[in-house]
Amino acid sequence: MANSRYEYVRNFEQPDNLLPSTWLVVRVDGKGFTKFTTKHEFKKPNDIRALDLMNRAAKVVMENMDEIAISYGQSDEFSFVFSKDAKAYGRRASKLMTLLVSQFTSAYVFYWSEFFPDTKLQFPPAFDSRVVMYPSDRIMRDYLCWRQVDCHINNMYNTCFWTLVDKGGITPKEAEKRLSGTFKKDKHELLYGFDMNYNNELEIFKKGSVLVRDKVFVDVVDRQNVVTKREKTVVKIKHCDIIKDAFWKEHPEILGEEETRSERNE
Amino acid sequence: MANSRYEYVRNFEQPDNLLPSTWLVVRVDGKGFTKFTTKHEFKKPNDIRALDLMNRAAKVVMENMDEIAISYGQSDEFSFVFSKDAKAYGRRASKLMTLLVSQFTSAYVFYWSEFFPDTKLQFPPAFDSRVVMYPSDRIMRDYLCWRQVDCHINNMYNTCFWTLVDKGGITPKEAEKRLSGTFKKDKHELLYGFDMNYNNELEIFKKGSVLVRDKVFVDVVDRQNVVTKREKTVVKIKHCDIIKDAFWKEHPEILGEEETRSERNE
Amino acid sequence: MANSRYEYVRNFEQPDNLLPSTWLVVRVDGKGFTKFTTKHEFKKPNDIRALDLMNRAAKVVMENMDEIAISYGQSDEFSFVFSKDAKAYGRRASKLMTLLVSQFTSAYVFYWSEFFPDTKLQFPPAFDSRVVMYPSDRIMRDYLCWRQVDCHINNMYNTCFWTLVDKGGITPKEAEKRLSGTFKKDKHELLYGFDMNYNNELEIFKKGSVLVRDKVFVDVVDRQNVVTKREKTVVKIKHCDIIKDAFWKEHPEILGEEETRSERNE
Amino acid sequence: MANSRYEYVRNFEQPDNLLPSTWLVVRVDGKGFTKFTTKHEFKKPNDIRALDLMNRAAKVVMENMDEIAISYGQSDEFSFVFSKDAKAYGRRASKLMTLLVSQFTSAYVFYWSEFFPDTKLQFPPAFDSRVVMYPSDRIMRDYLCWRQVDCHINNMYNTCFWTLVDKGGITPKEAEKRLSGTFKKDKHELLYGFDMNYNNELEIFKKGSVLVRDKVFVDVVDRQNVVTKREKTVVKIKHCDIIKDAFWKEHPEILGEEETRSERNE
Repeated sequence: MANSRYEYVRNFEQPDNLLPSTWLVVRVDGKGFTKFTTKHEFKKPNDIRALDLMNRAAKVVMENMDEIAISYGQSDEFSFVFSKDAKAYGRRASKLMTLLVSQFTSAYVFYWSEFFPDTKLQFPPAFDSRVVMYPSDRIMRDYLCWRQVDCHINNMYNTCFWTLVDKGGITPKEAEKRLSGTFKKDKHELLYGFDMNYNNELEIFKKGSVLVRDKVFVDVVDRQNVVTKREKTVVKIKHCDIIKDAFWKEHPEILGEEETRSERNE
Repeated sequence: MANSRYEYVRNFEQPDNLLPSTWLVVRVDGKGFTKFTTKHEFKKPNDIRALDLMNRAAKVVMENMDEIAISYGQSDEFSFVFSKDAKAYGRRASKLMTLLVSQFTSAYVFYWSEFFPDTKLQFPPAFDSRVVMYPSDRIMRDYLCWRQVDCHINNMYNTCFWTLVDKGGITPKEAEKRLSGTFKKDKHELLYGFDMNYNNELEIFKKGSVLVRDKVFVDVVDRQNVVTKREKTVVKIKHCDIIKDAFWKEHPEILGEEETRSERNE
Repeated sequence: MANSRYEYVRNFEQPDNLLPSTWLVVRVDGKGFTKFTTKHEFKKPNDIRALDLMNRAAKVVMENMDEIAISYGQSDEFSFVFSKDAKAYGRRASKLMTLLVSQFTSAYVFYWSEFFPDTKLQFPPAFDSRVVMYPSDRIMRDYLCWRQVDCHINNMYNTCFWTLVDKGGITPKEAEKRLSGTFKKDKHELLYGFDMNYNNELEIFKKGSVLVRDKVFVDVVDRQNVVTKREKTVVKIKHCDIIKDAFWKEHPEILGEEETRSERNE
Repeated sequence: MANSRYEYVRNFEQPDNLLPSTWLVVRVDGKGFTKFTTKHEFKKPNDIRALDLMNRAAKVVMENMDEIAISYGQSDEFSFVFSKDAKAYGRRASKLMTLLVSQFTSAYVFYWSEFFPDTKLQFPPAFDSRVVMYPSDRIMRDYLCWRQVDCHINNMYNTCFWTLVDKGGITPKEAEKRLSGTFKKDKHELLYGFDMNYNNELEIFKKGSVLVRDKVFVDVVDRQNVVTKREKTVVKIKHCDIIKDAFWKEHPEILGEEETRSERNE
């Protein structure tokens, strides 16, 4: 083949397969979203349309990569947790990271007009992604705790900040100063002063979004018009606590049973 | 901070900075494009609208990442060559690969309707990407040769194949068999039999697309309506040979001057 | 400093820190030991002096690196298992691998004459090493099982082989043919034919060597000649089964207790 | 095979092949040599026996690994430069680093008594090693410049320091203070004050040791006692400048001719 003379350049590609039997977390992050949200007039502190669009894009990703056990999203970021035994693309880091971020971005732009029917997309947004290995269930769960606590802290802060600016009529700079050094209790009280109860805020704002797989029964109609039920796996979006054990007991399929040696070898 | 308890999970992120002073090539590849092109009825063997859209997306990438010295695209793939001294994102492999593929995908979906005004996008397409280091100018150039020769070989084959099917009226299977074992000369003759001259095919089909930066002078109008010329760097799309030396002599800025030690340290 | 002009070359060093919370196994292997053992007339199938020297060298390594939880050696190889939480040298792969293999080799040559008083070392022997991460206790244990089963299989084969050659008076080639396709039972019977019982072979040959840490009480004499007992950790060499659970129950300190999150963060 | 049940653990080994067409430098460094040199009463600032022993060990390494183009040593460190096209062990980083440091250490202990006939080795010394890729000739040369300049700076400082302590009769602490902030010129003058001329110091102290390969003719005697000359490659030890171009012009075989594409593919 005439091309073989140059094909030696392929030898410069280096393998990047991730360690077997570890949880793989791919996190997608909005690139320059401060500018993007301003340009598209996102509501502050949270724009429900934007969060729903993020969830829609994440759903596409989960439907395309069936080894993702659970996903978690908040603000302009989304984390996808591949099961410990995931085999997709030979666990090559670059394949997993790039395909996933590409699918996510593609769906985000594709479904934009469905969630922002009155706002024209001004320029193509971008996301980056990374992949991290977590060797044990506990550490993988701690990763998700980290993101959900981050969601909580940021949302509480931002809710206070924009309340001070929008209802309190002070400048962003003054709001920042006002909030500096305050604790959770102080923030709750501050909101009460504006007749707001933080606990009544939307769960999607306070907890973020959790995507899990669920089994449902769908009607299948055959040629003779006979209807039968068939089990189907679908992606469900929840806004619940994933820090406490309760969630994990309700979803035992995520962690799976502890593998035994014999299973691994059959 | 309440979050610190979980923050230890960040220690599992591993650095992936690429070697300094090497050319970095990020190649973007269409994922499952056989299905995608069928679904969207791309013209065979080449759909000029699809190639123009690829070029448009690549242009967005080059405008966003100014350390890309040259890009080369053909079919559903695009290669971006970062200069040896590129410093973007600390040369972190994951950042470069994922941001780039995300920007490319985003622009592809964003500009779709401009290039396919009569074809609705049916589902969000995806691309993967990888990054490879090339230590010398010669090897980086050989990489580009590899891709351009690949373009040439595939295009010649596909042109014959679809001519046999479309004009010759034989089945794809028969066409494949007919072409098996043929040489360049045979393929030229085959096309002559259909009154076609391969040399008259479009350059974009035969050579692919080369994106380089060019300096142009644009008119700048100030408040007093005084017009002045200002130099501006723009991305130009060419369909030329990049295998022979001529191209590189015309574009000395791509390889740059051989760095000297003193320069490197200032 | 006059040297700063060249110091940029340090930027080409790339980090290679291993994943936290995984078992690290460094295995040392003899390089070209077929030639080495022939040249130094090692007894076949096992030379107890050589195995004792390997153990002596491994002991030096364990005394120098206190995060090694257990080591296992057989033939011309030795595996060192660093605890999941080992922090030595920031878990840099190159530091761990190279220092360990250097210490091992150094001790091997240093103590040679103690174990081979009548055999002059002819040339300096060499070992290579590698490091592998194992994410769970079970998989790390399976690694050790792999090596101990390997010891067993090889030793049984070699015992038969050299019995056939030494006592049976057949050529190595014939012995190889004679053993081809035989099972464990056949090998036991073969040895019986030479009045040998495989079960009576030395444990160090059949099981290899297991190095663990043990606490002992030593007498400490002060200036007034008062003797007090003090606890001291020493390295013990055993030749026991490490496949079954019994060993691990006797040595709970190797696996340690399952870490809890709070511990990890204090 | 009974062992196959555990053999899955091999899947956890990760490839670490280094980039083709780059210079590979493996540097060996003494571990805890301050203690080692004190314990073995090395002469200060330089012990010629110790440097000769380092060179002897390095020679063994070069004789065993014929793709090493040049080595450079000073103090308790030695750098080995593998040619750009070296293929040994598939360019696996761990194999190269560990075998090399093991061979070096082994030879160091093996030859100790030859260079220190009156000093018994008290305990087995250890070295670590690392491997770094350098993409161009210039950068690889700058690496060697870095080490030779380092040798020069340290040796000048140490020569002054030990002169002040040994001949000047001041304490190490005072000597350190006395030298703080001094320039090259000051140090030359300081030595003149003790009737010493730095330029007359041994070249091995000022320049370190450069090991290159040289072709010599050796007499070969056959059975009929006929003597013929045969070319043989030997390792030569020099103490010359490797910063200026002169050295590289005298040794064109180190850099080799610029490879051309056609060569690379044949």
